Amino acid sequence: MYADLPLRRLDEVQGEIAGCRLVFSCLPHGEAMSVLPDLENDVVIDLSGDFRLDDAATYERWYGTEHSAVDAIEDWTYGLPELFRDDIAESDRIANPGCYPTAAALAVVPLVSSDAVEGVVVVDAVSGTSGAGRVPKPNLHFAHVAENFSAYRIAHHQHTPEIEYAVNLATEREVQVSFTAHLAPMVRGIHATVSAKLRDGVAAQEVHAVIEDAYAAEDFVTVVPSPPSTKQVCGSNMAALHVVVDERVGRVIVVSVIDNLVKGAAGQAVQNANIALGLDETLGLPTEGLYP
Amino acid sequence: MYADLPLRRLDEVQGEIAGCRLVFSCLPHGEAMSVLPDLENDVVIDLSGDFRLDDAATYERWYGTEHSAVDAIEDWTYGLPELFRDDIAESDRIANPGCYPTAAALAVVPLVSSDAVEGVVVVDAVSGTSGAGRVPKPNLHFAHVAENFSAYRIAHHQHTPEIEYAVNLATEREVQVSFTAHLAPMVRGIHATVSAKLRDGVAAQEVHAVIEDAYAAEDFVTVVPSPPSTKQVCGSNMAALHVVVDERVGRVIVVSVIDNLVKGAAGQAVQNANIALGLDETLGLPTEGLYP
Amino acid sequence: MYADLPLRRLDEVQGEIAGCRLVFSCLPHGEAMSVLPDLENDVVIDLSGDFRLDDAATYERWYGTEHSAVDAIEDWTYGLPELFRDDIAESDRIANPGCYPTAAALAVVPLVSSDAVEGVVVVDAVSGTSGAGRVPKPNLHFAHVAENFSAYRIAHHQHTPEIEYAVNLATEREVQVSFTAHLAPMVRGIHATVSAKLRDGVAAQEVHAVIEDAYAAEDFVTVVPSPPSTKQVCGSNMAALHVVVDERVGRVIVVSVIDNLVKGAAGQAVQNANIALGLDETLGLPTEGLYP
Amino acid sequence: MYADLPLRRLDEVQGEIAGCRLVFSCLPHGEAMSVLPDLENDVVIDLSGDFRLDDAATYERWYGTEHSAVDAIEDWTYGLPELFRDDIAESDRIANPGCYPTAAALAVVPLVSSDAVEGVVVVDAVSGTSGAGRVPKPNLHFAHVAENFSAYRIAHHQHTPEIEYAVNLATEREVQVSFTAHLAPMVRGIHATVSAKLRDGVAAQEVHAVIEDAYAAEDFVTVVPSPPSTKQVCGSNMAALHVVVDERVGRVIVVSVIDNLVKGAAGQAVQNANIALGLDETLGLPTEGLYP
Repeated sequence: MYADLPLRRLDEVQGEIAGCRLVFSCLPHGEAMSVLPDLENDVVIDLSGDFRLDDAATYERWYGTEHSAVDAIEDWTYGLPELFRDDIAESDRIANPGCYPTAAALAVVPLVSSDAVEGVVVVDAVSGTSGAGRVPKPNLHFAHVAENFSAYRIAHHQHTPEIEYAVNLATEREVQVSFTAHLAPMVRGIHATVSAKLRDGVAAQEVHAVIEDAYAAEDFVTVVPSPPSTKQVCGSNMAALHVVVDERVGRVIVVSVIDNLVKGAAGQAVQNANIALGLDETLGLPTEGLYP
Repeated sequence: MYADLPLRRLDEVQGEIAGCRLVFSCLPHGEAMSVLPDLENDVVIDLSGDFRLDDAATYERWYGTEHSAVDAIEDWTYGLPELFRDDIAESDRIANPGCYPTAAALAVVPLVSSDAVEGVVVVDAVSGTSGAGRVPKPNLHFAHVAENFSAYRIAHHQHTPEIEYAVNLATEREVQVSFTAHLAPMVRGIHATVSAKLRDGVAAQEVHAVIEDAYAAEDFVTVVPSPPSTKQVCGSNMAALHVVVDERVGRVIVVSVIDNLVKGAAGQAVQNANIALGLDETLGLPTEGLYP
Repeated sequence: MYADLPLRRLDEVQGEIAGCRLVFSCLPHGEAMSVLPDLENDVVIDLSGDFRLDDAATYERWYGTEHSAVDAIEDWTYGLPELFRDDIAESDRIANPGCYPTAAALAVVPLVSSDAVEGVVVVDAVSGTSGAGRVPKPNLHFAHVAENFSAYRIAHHQHTPEIEYAVNLATEREVQVSFTAHLAPMVRGIHATVSAKLRDGVAAQEVHAVIEDAYAAEDFVTVVPSPPSTKQVCGSNMAALHVVVDERVGRVIVVSVIDNLVKGAAGQAVQNANIALGLDETLGLPTEGLYP
Repeated sequence: MYADLPLRRLDEVQGEIAGCRLVFSCLPHGEAMSVLPDLENDVVIDLSGDFRLDDAATYERWYGTEHSAVDAIEDWTYGLPELFRDDIAESDRIANPGCYPTAAALAVVPLVSSDAVEGVVVVDAVSGTSGAGRVPKPNLHFAHVAENFSAYRIAHHQHTPEIEYAVNLATEREVQVSFTAHLAPMVRGIHATVSAKLRDGVAAQEVHAVIEDAYAAEDFVTVVPSPPSTKQVCGSNMAALHVVVDERVGRVIVVSVIDNLVKGAAGQAVQNANIALGLDETLGLPTEGLYP
């Protein structure tokens, strides 16, 4: 049964942390960078954004904060298993991806790596409120959020460079993303609608094949024949993708859904830990959640 | 206090209808076309999709239904007041726009008419469930919709040609739209996120000016300095727009919100009636709704 | 269109307030008592709990705060129009009732005044989150409230003595109430389920007649033949009551619904102002709200 | 990942069913009674209401349906493990309790069996919409349920005699219950607020001890020090109880929460199966669910 755990100060648990082989850090960005470089545990997995980007200048531009551990950045591996599994397996410092970048990059990478699309990729994505953290704020008050929908941080969301970084690292291309985040009146779930210009001569069936082949061997990514809903993956570590080629306008649309708290955060962190520790990647990770 | 009204059969109220000067029809599409051409009332406003498009072939392709009143189509005026006010004033048969096209066209038209953008316009829009009608269906069951978000009818939604028709009629251009509809766990509201490639050399401030100028004199359209939320317009006949130029990727994003049951349906119908009857356009139409 | 208004400090608007004939005060309890006794306006309507009870000791026991304006208490009239209309009309200092007491007292008073019931009256009532105010708190976070239901302040809610005070003042009886408040995952609405032991020999039809007669002449209270839902009165100043006599167990159940922000707060304040100023009581008050 | 399974007709799976040792039946009431008596499987657990009451006349009065398998009724054991564990262990035909009766009986039985209370017990209980089944109906449409709260079937809900039956069977007393069911805008969860008159001379601490002792050894029932919320048990097989003695009015209030789909249905069915088959009672049953 759910109950709030008492919070303890970091300095009170320093000793306990030192005795662990594996550490998951959920410190906020800005704080993770000042604590994690000093840890000597075998494996550290960071759920903040501090070590996801490989470039401090980009970090500072989008996060609006100076990066205080620039030298440590290169120690970290970007932990999206389906794209960087081999790197993660050899790494002991893993930057767990953001929720939006997880949903978006899984959809965008096969399109880009196969040269099926060109131009700026448009990502309109929607999050439940749990993505905004537990701190009470006026814009997270039930009376405001219920029956409400809005975009936020348009053209300035810090996940934009992370999506580009993940895509470009995985595909060795230079793709730009126009990312718009939205808040929906729900608790869990990320829904990303990815739209890109189809390159001339690329057939619809090629695009479908590219996406399906990319994830055919994956336990936690599935390609489905109709638009998936966030609730289908709620409580599970699954990502579900759906592809539509709109030949009339020459674009491809890929929809991607995850549970932001599982595949978009804690579940993916466990998946990364499993890989880094040489365990079965699926250990402890549900593929079935809760419906309805 | 709300209470369900008893439904009466059309043939039982034929006489009462004949005695009215003004008729609002909320018949489903497919049925409106078989009833409305025979009406002899001074003004008829149709909330179905049957007389919105000027081309029966396009109607049949997107609605999947034969158009049984092709000759009557030319009698009808597309009733988006902010774009076609003069035509509406001279018309006695008004096709009330769809909810998605209202939100989308208000955002897209100034961008296109000013030649600020080029290429396919991407419209990712979100609706509350009241847009899907009152008939109970599994996908409208509270237990399914709550805490859920999904896209539907990707590349096949019948509002796609309507958005293109409205935009092209208003701008005398030939623009294509890639439209994706989504269902959010809320009752009311349309939120459209419009994204288009900025034409080379167009400055951000020009884009802002174009949108602001377009609606400066309007009672029911306002341009706001931060992303509007659907709840801000809930219960009112207002549309709120917000513009962001993303110079980094060379695109403009316009967000547009309405209450689908007011500006997206009944309110706009009253607005059209006011215009067609020569009344003050704002009669009976709230600019303030209900919050929270 | 809804937009947050800038907050101004009380001392900045003192002059403007002094120039008003009528003041509505929405200061929190504890603060109202230190400000309102000094006002010299013709009519002051207080939406806090500070002047609702006629007994400072009871106030202090349930609110856990000393009452700093004990001498002023007798200047105030308890403003539930359907029960105390004549007193309100003669008063210039009106304590606007709480949301729960409004819903509960309207249901309980006719039962008690007619001697139809005996013993402790059980009131299990449910509120939307807007009743808890705008200040962001962990228990009002959307991620906590959504899909959640709980009781709070059982046997200690400060509206308990207010319900008893209203009932006993209106009926000249000494009734005790066992009141349990609950929070439901919705924004607006109070739903009170009132249950009391039927006095021996009282027939079901008498109970129905008592409730119907009590409100037959009221504009804002209606007795309905099936259980009303909170959404039926959302946005309106209506209270809807429904009565069931359960002869099997010898109890009567009355359900009562209001919109906590209208009949339970702002709407009732306007109703009280209308009465105190000698205006038509229904001025500016909707009987129809927003559905769905 | 959640996906709808194809439905198959009962006659198509008759053979498969016959080959099973254990059958869970989720046939609607009225249908279960015509199918289940013919089954010859080792253990049958019925989630309908058809075999919960031991008296056909009571069934017919509350369900409004004739009972077509009166002779079979005595073969069935009422399967609320915490109250009737020994009977279940010896039974092969188990009537799985309703969701409301599970939540209510767990709260009421210790109060009654210890003679702490007297008179009619008032049970005001609230359910999420998943309790109403999957069939789409107007009153389950998201646009109706969202932001809505109402009572239903007041004094006529078929779970009333089931609560009384469970309580009286467990306590060997003759208690009457005044039960009012409510629908809240949420998917999962039952919240029961039980209120009863404290017998003269019973001390508050006795009441607390009675409830705590009753469930001290239980894996799936916990007594908590503050009012539990439905979300705390969402997805788990737990019931959480909280007791308040209101000495001022001489009543005791017990709040009880469960997930109607787990402890209130499928989870309890598994718990019953474990007991009937001589397995560890907790097998396959989560005590932790999903939060937020």
